[in-house]
Amino acid sequence: MASESGKLWGGRFVGAVDPIMEKFNSSITYDQQLWEVDVQGSKAYSRGLQKAGILTKTEMDQILQGLDKVAEEWAQGTFKLNPNDEDIHTANERRLKELIGETAGKLHTGRSRNDQVVTDLRLWLRQNCSTLSALLRELIRTMVDRADAERDILFPGYTHLQRAQPIRWSHWILSGAIAGNPLGVDRELLRAELNFGAITLNSMDATSERDFVAEFLFWASLCMTHLSRMAEDLILYGTKEFNLVQLSDAYSTGSSLMPQKKNPDSLELIRSKAGRVFGRCAGLLMTLKGLPSTYNKDLQEDKEAVFEVSNTMSAVIQVATGVISTLQIHRENMARALSPDMLATDLAYYLVRKGMPFRQAHEASGKAVFMAETKGVALNQLSLQELQTISPLFSGDVSHVWDYGHSVEQYTALGGTARSSVDWQIGQVRALLGAQQA
Amino acid sequence: MASESGKLWGGRFVGAVDPIMEKFNSSITYDQQLWEVDVQGSKAYSRGLQKAGILTKTEMDQILQGLDKVAEEWAQGTFKLNPNDEDIHTANERRLKELIGETAGKLHTGRSRNDQVVTDLRLWLRQNCSTLSALLRELIRTMVDRADAERDILFPGYTHLQRAQPIRWSHWILSGAIAGNPLGVDRELLRAELNFGAITLNSMDATSERDFVAEFLFWASLCMTHLSRMAEDLILYGTKEFNLVQLSDAYSTGSSLMPQKKNPDSLELIRSKAGRVFGRCAGLLMTLKGLPSTYNKDLQEDKEAVFEVSNTMSAVIQVATGVISTLQIHRENMARALSPDMLATDLAYYLVRKGMPFRQAHEASGKAVFMAETKGVALNQLSLQELQTISPLFSGDVSHVWDYGHSVEQYTALGGTARSSVDWQIGQVRALLGAQQA
Amino acid sequence: MASESGKLWGGRFVGAVDPIMEKFNSSITYDQQLWEVDVQGSKAYSRGLQKAGILTKTEMDQILQGLDKVAEEWAQGTFKLNPNDEDIHTANERRLKELIGETAGKLHTGRSRNDQVVTDLRLWLRQNCSTLSALLRELIRTMVDRADAERDILFPGYTHLQRAQPIRWSHWILSGAIAGNPLGVDRELLRAELNFGAITLNSMDATSERDFVAEFLFWASLCMTHLSRMAEDLILYGTKEFNLVQLSDAYSTGSSLMPQKKNPDSLELIRSKAGRVFGRCAGLLMTLKGLPSTYNKDLQEDKEAVFEVSNTMSAVIQVATGVISTLQIHRENMARALSPDMLATDLAYYLVRKGMPFRQAHEASGKAVFMAETKGVALNQLSLQELQTISPLFSGDVSHVWDYGHSVEQYTALGGTARSSVDWQIGQVRALLGAQQA
Amino acid sequence: MASESGKLWGGRFVGAVDPIMEKFNSSITYDQQLWEVDVQGSKAYSRGLQKAGILTKTEMDQILQGLDKVAEEWAQGTFKLNPNDEDIHTANERRLKELIGETAGKLHTGRSRNDQVVTDLRLWLRQNCSTLSALLRELIRTMVDRADAERDILFPGYTHLQRAQPIRWSHWILSGAIAGNPLGVDRELLRAELNFGAITLNSMDATSERDFVAEFLFWASLCMTHLSRMAEDLILYGTKEFNLVQLSDAYSTGSSLMPQKKNPDSLELIRSKAGRVFGRCAGLLMTLKGLPSTYNKDLQEDKEAVFEVSNTMSAVIQVATGVISTLQIHRENMARALSPDMLATDLAYYLVRKGMPFRQAHEASGKAVFMAETKGVALNQLSLQELQTISPLFSGDVSHVWDYGHSVEQYTALGGTARSSVDWQIGQVRALLGAQQA
Repeated sequence: MASESGKLWGGRFVGAVDPIMEKFNSSITYDQQLWEVDVQGSKAYSRGLQKAGILTKTEMDQILQGLDKVAEEWAQGTFKLNPNDEDIHTANERRLKELIGETAGKLHTGRSRNDQVVTDLRLWLRQNCSTLSALLRELIRTMVDRADAERDILFPGYTHLQRAQPIRWSHWILSGAIAGNPLGVDRELLRAELNFGAITLNSMDATSERDFVAEFLFWASLCMTHLSRMAEDLILYGTKEFNLVQLSDAYSTGSSLMPQKKNPDSLELIRSKAGRVFGRCAGLLMTLKGLPSTYNKDLQEDKEAVFEVSNTMSAVIQVATGVISTLQIHRENMARALSPDMLATDLAYYLVRKGMPFRQAHEASGKAVFMAETKGVALNQLSLQELQTISPLFSGDVSHVWDYGHSVEQYTALGGTARSSVDWQIGQVRALLGAQQA
Repeated sequence: MASESGKLWGGRFVGAVDPIMEKFNSSITYDQQLWEVDVQGSKAYSRGLQKAGILTKTEMDQILQGLDKVAEEWAQGTFKLNPNDEDIHTANERRLKELIGETAGKLHTGRSRNDQVVTDLRLWLRQNCSTLSALLRELIRTMVDRADAERDILFPGYTHLQRAQPIRWSHWILSGAIAGNPLGVDRELLRAELNFGAITLNSMDATSERDFVAEFLFWASLCMTHLSRMAEDLILYGTKEFNLVQLSDAYSTGSSLMPQKKNPDSLELIRSKAGRVFGRCAGLLMTLKGLPSTYNKDLQEDKEAVFEVSNTMSAVIQVATGVISTLQIHRENMARALSPDMLATDLAYYLVRKGMPFRQAHEASGKAVFMAETKGVALNQLSLQELQTISPLFSGDVSHVWDYGHSVEQYTALGGTARSSVDWQIGQVRALLGAQQA
Repeated sequence: MASESGKLWGGRFVGAVDPIMEKFNSSITYDQQLWEVDVQGSKAYSRGLQKAGILTKTEMDQILQGLDKVAEEWAQGTFKLNPNDEDIHTANERRLKELIGETAGKLHTGRSRNDQVVTDLRLWLRQNCSTLSALLRELIRTMVDRADAERDILFPGYTHLQRAQPIRWSHWILSGAIAGNPLGVDRELLRAELNFGAITLNSMDATSERDFVAEFLFWASLCMTHLSRMAEDLILYGTKEFNLVQLSDAYSTGSSLMPQKKNPDSLELIRSKAGRVFGRCAGLLMTLKGLPSTYNKDLQEDKEAVFEVSNTMSAVIQVATGVISTLQIHRENMARALSPDMLATDLAYYLVRKGMPFRQAHEASGKAVFMAETKGVALNQLSLQELQTISPLFSGDVSHVWDYGHSVEQYTALGGTARSSVDWQIGQVRALLGAQQA
Repeated sequence: MASESGKLWGGRFVGAVDPIMEKFNSSITYDQQLWEVDVQGSKAYSRGLQKAGILTKTEMDQILQGLDKVAEEWAQGTFKLNPNDEDIHTANERRLKELIGETAGKLHTGRSRNDQVVTDLRLWLRQNCSTLSALLRELIRTMVDRADAERDILFPGYTHLQRAQPIRWSHWILSGAIAGNPLGVDRELLRAELNFGAITLNSMDATSERDFVAEFLFWASLCMTHLSRMAEDLILYGTKEFNLVQLSDAYSTGSSLMPQKKNPDSLELIRSKAGRVFGRCAGLLMTLKGLPSTYNKDLQEDKEAVFEVSNTMSAVIQVATGVISTLQIHRENMARALSPDMLATDLAYYLVRKGMPFRQAHEASGKAVFMAETKGVALNQLSLQELQTISPLFSGDVSHVWDYGHSVEQYTALGGTARSSVDWQIGQVRALLGAQQA
């Protein structure tokens, strides 16, 4: 290559390679966690080379044994990195050569480092998704078990953070468990992506596209967004004001200043991580934007993103599982939080059942709410006479409306908050868990 | 509700509703494009109400006919919006009541606007994904047809934007066509999501989660990122410096200042849209982060995002199809851009075939490249004697290396750039297109 | 330019320009709102041309009058767009030519459309920032006025959403008003950027960089993030559970289903917009990433982002001003929400004042909290004897601790919650408002 | 605090604190790099406590000496972390207590850890911005020095990556140097933010807002976006096709497969980092969105973002400086890349100077370009007769147009590409550098 006159204008550096560039370029500090899949990939590749006649049987065996030794050194923590080991691939190949000599040089025939990088990362992600998936199943299982055990507890369903209608506590739990199930869908996708049964259609595209990385990061972002919402709910339900649940001490921390406080740090951290994970997804897409086709060094950004996101997910899911499994609920407060005005919709339905169009019934019920507010009484304390000034359709059986248990039992449609419906949801989620386990 | 003493401190506004709030709250300016699916949804719902005994057969028929009339008015552009029509749902219901009277008030029994919003958007997206999908198939078909017709043209494959090895032009085209096929996978996902055959498991979750929106926006972002990369390649290949392709005038614009210029505006716009589309995805996830469960008005952000992204995608795909179908390629320049040093890897493989380990062969070939550079000759002009100073394994048959056609024909592995492999890729993509059509 | 054989492979389009490309390329649908600044810029430029001797005085006058006529037509809504008017610049120039003939062709001497685009956008943004700034001042003024009037109301300060220490309501208001003041800083920056007193240093950079756009979008994102946090606080404070404030009906909406509900839609929308605005910022940066220097059509993405963000900001700030100015606070509930355990820090300080190191005092106070919890009494109901079992430093004067008013009055440091400190903050913010007005 | 019955449903964990929660919660692994500023902050605070009468002079001296000892241990690498050291603040305080006993417990009087966190981070960022600023000045200085030495070299200016007009190479360099100077503006902002001369106006806001972090991350994102564009230009200019510059070996790497290749890895990495840095900015804003006021643990996300971005920036700027200072330019190729059609605008100006309106002149020049293309000759090879068929205004002096040096010398306006203008730009940037140094 053309000789170099070195620095021209004031550069800090003279010589063959700028040490800062070397460090900037190197990925060994983080990609060494690929050691296992790198060895795994190279073993498979050496078998391919033998089949293709590039390696003799003896050479292949030499290489396979050498690679096993390399793996052993990593596993035992005795592998020594060289300053020149730029990445895990060169490190492993360098060590292999030290162990078995020149034959090691044949292993790289016909593949580029770009192939290795992407294959290793796919293998690692496959292993890792399977771990994350198991952790998520554990979280979902914990939630379903609680839902099962606590299905008779009613509390306010909120929309816009306003008390809306009575619902079962189990119904809330399952809304989270279900929101967690995009995994089911996406693992399908990732599995299809990663099982290598399918052949990458185009060699240029294979080293250049990072869809499997982007999709993993986005799936993680969406999953974390769901968990951030569940965390927000539990933070609110745990305030002195809501006082519906109590976080275990194991997942709380005290204040360095205020002795009386117990802060829901675990939930706040879960909520916060959605930002971090999505930031990595945003960063990768920005890096990919407008990149020329095939391999460019820009793609090296993929690995740290995947590693960090995977670690974050793993911690978050485990902490979330711990939080849910030790959370105490205050059933009396939940019951106390129900109030007759939450049955205003039921009051409207009462009129609908008597033949009034819903829009008119909604208005009539609204008038009853206003009347109760004006008189300073609860909605169920309006007398029949008072209700009849609003509509003559009210009669004595209106008293049946004021029963929270009866109210929730109306919602028997699949997905609803009636006992039978909640039972069905529990069954569905358990079936899903069972299917994934298998 | 509690009376209001109105403005307390310096507010600009006195009265019942702040007109700016009304405008801020209203979604009718953009959600009116949901008119068709809103009517469709309401017709289905009224059938459900009749089955449940809430509507008589006569009432249902009245409603169905009224809704058909509403749809007709929208289709003919005669539907008149009221200032009080906050969104498409209230607009349609208000009009229905004008047309058929009080019976209209029964249509809303047992469903909330939040249900309608999310159902309408799912229906709209299902229709729209199907349109986008057809447009994408057209783009891919155009690419495959070109790949088919131009499979004998060789040109440089680049990595790091450095000339790497000779490849078929069709191989490049297919790398784009294939990168476009995440759609295949994701439509599966969206179809599963949208076909309503599956039941939403939990009613709280159903109105509150927007996974189908987030996933659509992310799929669009990833798809646009691929197109941004294809656009970048074509912009570069079309420069005076590369001069490998020429963009049709139909997709170029002139300069207002410089008479000699023809700018690839179409490709630059395609490249730029990845940012816009991803921005919408980022925005939605940020809006979702930390939101309490069930419906909150924040979720209203979903619709404009979906509409804008869908429109942008539609335009981009059509322009990309036009660009590809009218692009002229300069075959002589493509041929001229191939140079013997791009066969340095082949030279190494030559030595591998003679028994040298790849690492040594790579080094030997590198020495040959350096020798040629030093002597100022092309790599294939080194004499046999000169090559033999590098390795005695070189013999007369080394001359077979210097044939570009022969070089590409080595890559017969599936996904490679050999003719047979490119044929196979064309077949695969066509099969995929056929399958999706069906 | 080279002739075009038209479509080669299956393109839908034959002819000179693909109509979809034309629409894709055109910016007139949204950039027509630049009409005023475009005329303003052209008038200034024609004066420059006359000074440079390119235009005679007569020609310049002709152009100036023509441009005034163009502006008049826009102002009166009589300007008619042509199908060929690609953007506001060509539209205005086309119309000018119709009005004054060939002289119009001289106006464009020595400037490119890229110059015009960026100059127009800078001018528009300058005008618009000044409007937004006035709206923000109005919001801040409203907040300061409330803080002034309500400074004697105490309520719980929360950290981690746990009740922490008593603070003045005004202290909370001012934390929002102050968070709103990055504007002060950034307007400085934008003003410096936009006042054109400073000369752009490099002509290549001038048409190519969009820092002023990116900085505006980021400033808007940060400002909206602050407002999202204020909205979150008010949504919580307005729940039945917190019940500290009540949103005016003018900024609430009812439920279509549940008659008793009043939803804080205004605050939810404010909270949601942070996502949208930041999405635009993210989109622009992604579009800019890796773009070759000087003008590329990708930069056309800047305008819609600026327009949408500016409109969103304007609506949000006005609604926020309305919300704050009509918000009712429930002082009795605020008072009732204070509880003795929020004075646990004060109890520790009591011991510190008696000579105990803070860490020990913190621990002692924690023991008192625990003792009270165990006995099921309020912290201030522990007897002196009981307290003395924890530390002999407790004596009769400990009763002074249990006074909320006294507690807040301790925080007299600047920025604290003591009356004098809040007074000072009000003064500071008012001074800032005064300075910006001037 | 309330006792805990431990796990209820299947949680993996039993006992007082879940070890995974402890790790999840802990920040010591990354925030230990704050050790120096934490000691610095505590020393200042203990002086404040003495002044306020909380510490005696003796106690203060004891604490100051103890803190110096703590700092010494960190500096010498002998500080030993405890498993219970949750963060740097507790670690330092724990060690201080071991060194000086109970007096250490007084240091925390009246401040919370939330105060410490935010103060430490501000101090660290102040130090670090000053380092980054020095590195950036070095980069800019290197660029200006080159611009100074190479101002006579002309090459094509590109817009839309199409050759547009001849410009000075120095003009390109300065467009980058200048784009780098947002720093100038933003350091102002950060300095104002960080110099603590100004008092934070509101105590709630002080621990809760992270504007200084968000602004730093955004400034870094914008700066990296500029560098990504400069990198893109240099990657293109260094391709075989453009062949205008050559990257030093010190900043290139070879291919593991293709012996002839030299890849611009340094520039590709610079380009890629814009994504990573912006991802952190996006992540933080998403974390902040909708957070209740005052401190929430979510804010802990700020530190890793700041540390990573700061490290990335530092490496990128140093590598960029090295790249620019050792970059070789190919002047002959630059000269060869200039072609007469790039003077088509000059040809139009020639006609303008003869009195033709620019729009007509632009058209006439366009006709000449087309005539030359049709005849297959260079634009300057059209005969006078041929030109006169386009316009009678052409005469013998048209030959003066075909001089690249003369062409660039026309652009004497400030910011232009004339020698005098480039001289002025160099002077301006140097003055800026001088001012910042001072």
